[in-house]
Amino acid sequence: MRGLVLGALRPTQPSLHAATDHASPPECRPGRAGTRSVVDQALRSLLRRRFRRAPLRFSLADGTDLFDSGIDRVATVLAQDRHTLLGLVVDPEGNFGDAYGEGRIDVRGGDLVAALEAAYRALDSGGNEGRPRALGWGHSLRESRANARRHYDLGNEFYRLWLDEQMIYTSAYFPRPGLSLEQAQVAKLDRVCRKLVLQPGERVVEAGCGWGALALHMARRCGVAVRAYNVSAEQVRYARARAVAEGLSGLVEFVEDDYRSITGRFDAFVSVGMLEHVGPENYRRLGSVIRRCLDPERGRGLLHFIGRDRARRVNAWIRKRIFPGAYSPTLAEVAGEVLEPAGLSALDVENLRPHYAATLAHWRARFEAAADAVRARYGAEFTRAWRLYLAGSEAAFRTGSLQLFQVVFARGGADVPWSRAGVDVEGAEVTSRRP
Amino acid sequence: MRGLVLGALRPTQPSLHAATDHASPPECRPGRAGTRSVVDQALRSLLRRRFRRAPLRFSLADGTDLFDSGIDRVATVLAQDRHTLLGLVVDPEGNFGDAYGEGRIDVRGGDLVAALEAAYRALDSGGNEGRPRALGWGHSLRESRANARRHYDLGNEFYRLWLDEQMIYTSAYFPRPGLSLEQAQVAKLDRVCRKLVLQPGERVVEAGCGWGALALHMARRCGVAVRAYNVSAEQVRYARARAVAEGLSGLVEFVEDDYRSITGRFDAFVSVGMLEHVGPENYRRLGSVIRRCLDPERGRGLLHFIGRDRARRVNAWIRKRIFPGAYSPTLAEVAGEVLEPAGLSALDVENLRPHYAATLAHWRARFEAAADAVRARYGAEFTRAWRLYLAGSEAAFRTGSLQLFQVVFARGGADVPWSRAGVDVEGAEVTSRRP
Repeated sequence: MRGLVLGALRPTQPSLHAATDHASPPECRPGRAGTRSVVDQALRSLLRRRFRRAPLRFSLADGTDLFDSGIDRVATVLAQDRHTLLGLVVDPEGNFGDAYGEGRIDVRGGDLVAALEAAYRALDSGGNEGRPRALGWGHSLRESRANARRHYDLGNEFYRLWLDEQMIYTSAYFPRPGLSLEQAQVAKLDRVCRKLVLQPGERVVEAGCGWGALALHMARRCGVAVRAYNVSAEQVRYARARAVAEGLSGLVEFVEDDYRSITGRFDAFVSVGMLEHVGPENYRRLGSVIRRCLDPERGRGLLHFIGRDRARRVNAWIRKRIFPGAYSPTLAEVAGEVLEPAGLSALDVENLRPHYAATLAHWRARFEAAADAVRARYGAEFTRAWRLYLAGSEAAFRTGSLQLFQVVFARGGADVPWSRAGVDVEGAEVTSRRP
Repeated sequence: MRGLVLGALRPTQPSLHAATDHASPPECRPGRAGTRSVVDQALRSLLRRRFRRAPLRFSLADGTDLFDSGIDRVATVLAQDRHTLLGLVVDPEGNFGDAYGEGRIDVRGGDLVAALEAAYRALDSGGNEGRPRALGWGHSLRESRANARRHYDLGNEFYRLWLDEQMIYTSAYFPRPGLSLEQAQVAKLDRVCRKLVLQPGERVVEAGCGWGALALHMARRCGVAVRAYNVSAEQVRYARARAVAEGLSGLVEFVEDDYRSITGRFDAFVSVGMLEHVGPENYRRLGSVIRRCLDPERGRGLLHFIGRDRARRVNAWIRKRIFPGAYSPTLAEVAGEVLEPAGLSALDVENLRPHYAATLAHWRARFEAAADAVRARYGAEFTRAWRLYLAGSEAAFRTGSLQLFQVVFARGGADVPWSRAGVDVEGAEVTSRRP
């Protein structure tokens, strides 16, 4: 029976782009009407179970409306064929991404982010999957390098199309509404400097420095000496060129290497957007690297990372298509496995998820404005996949499926800042450590 | 051999107070000189091993100087006899408290807090004991009530001698140096209200409300309705009388009951200084109580508690003499066992340990000013025990052996405040939740 049904459902057309919305779909061959009605009945029942409270309509390209929750609709999910829709219902996380990328599913008559928010809310089981035993991808030195290259070596030109002018690929911070993405990224860099209470002449090590914006900013703005590590060759080349162009190569050294290779003693450790790629099996290792490189009296640090309320895998499609090896930890995992075993003391944690949602809205608008250029160079499927990735991430930060944490810590027993009042003073660079 | 040595060491005088510093100690009987020199040699070696880097001198009341690290001395630890000093070296945590309380050990020629800081630093193994399996004291409803009564029903007159005028027995917050204890306690209450973004007309539940200062402050300052729980009958009586006197009994209800009995739906949950008494076996229970009583859309909360960098038991003497059943959790324990299983999202964590050290310095100064009255009513041993408890706590917050955390959280998916900028604005009461 299952074989028959799936046989009746198998698509023959490659994409919704080729199909007219109301064209006769491939499985609607004469004599299959009975099978189809059984399938439609099953689909209706499954959709109702999954999306009962979601403000969504589910339709087929042949014009069949399969399910509508009756709640103020934000969009219609349009599937090319029954097979695709069945896959979506059976395993939304595993099947939606590729089906959307390949154009077998589309979202019409509404905003993609709003539709994804609705789907996240409907599909959230509320359960705690627990920490995944195997991520299906390792984090050895070689594998970590391959993971990073897969994503970041896509080409600087690609990221330049939709990132800010400094090429910062982590959340911005919007102290006031209406700031441009460029201003909000500078505000984020300043905020990181203030949380670290950087003083001129101090030494800072950065793990995972992207295209170098934070390292250069710390040197320029706070007068600190920075050693910044990154395994992506293309990003390091870019960052070094910027340091030379800005006359900062005396203060900032970019090292093409893994965080595990950090040597030397520093006053501060900082890592923005790398922890997601470290892998939980390396959290203790990261903690001991941090401890080893921090001055026992003054050493403090900051970890900025995409986190979770509950331990669970990163979305399967994201791991397959976008970020191999990614894992977003809970605060308990970071506190218990990075900080505690290394004798590091948590000083300050801020959840900034609304700011990542706002950042992603900026990125998505720029990405859409450049969509023709992206499509011409990377193809339609790549373009759709990245549209989904950006919209899905925004929806995840809006619904709370993802969190954004900045964790400030110090070596246990080191001096603790008296107050964080200076962090929110725009333009301030230093907070006093004693009243 | 061991019996002989210990026999030679056994004290016969009750207290240093009775002994002149250089009087002949009981174990210095003729013919025992050989034994004594063996014992002194052993003590010197043990003291050197434990306190090699501590700026302390260890002496006996008979004038024997046993050990001096040679580092800038902050105080002399003076033991009445060799037996007491041996007990101190073998198990400092288990034996120092009672020996000090009973006057068999004293700290001379320096500040008690400085001496304790030095000792904490010297004795910190840096190790992680792991979570204790048994605390030797339970947290059933009945036991929790007994634990609280043991400490808080000591009598309001006792606490009135050295707390602020509002009888707030948790850390104050000093936004500026030089504030009085009274001002700093009000600043703390305001800070808690601002972190919770309380709006007039909202409903707040407080778990463990002490003498009622926060509950009354929230009602008076923010116009919210408060239901406040406490198992200490004497504190609840006091708090109710205050509510009546201030004309706030229409807004604030004090309930003499355990946090596990909380019923109803609230916009905010707050608990200041209770988590230390909940017991780790009840963290999940507390989380589910919080989840159940919080509004799913707007519900948020704050936990203020004495914490640890690493999982370990509360000092044995504190558990025995001061706080039966106390356990100070790590941030990982609170995030992983209270918040995560209950689907609560961590929004903001602040480590305020310098403020608890400053608060304790105020309490200690007031306690010393009232020491004659305390001694007259409660006896010399009680007075010395409380002196040690206050000084030891101050030293623990100074060295980082204890932390003070305020954790703000919300029901997962609930609205997240855009920014915490308003928290540090003195006088501000509300922060916007969206830009």
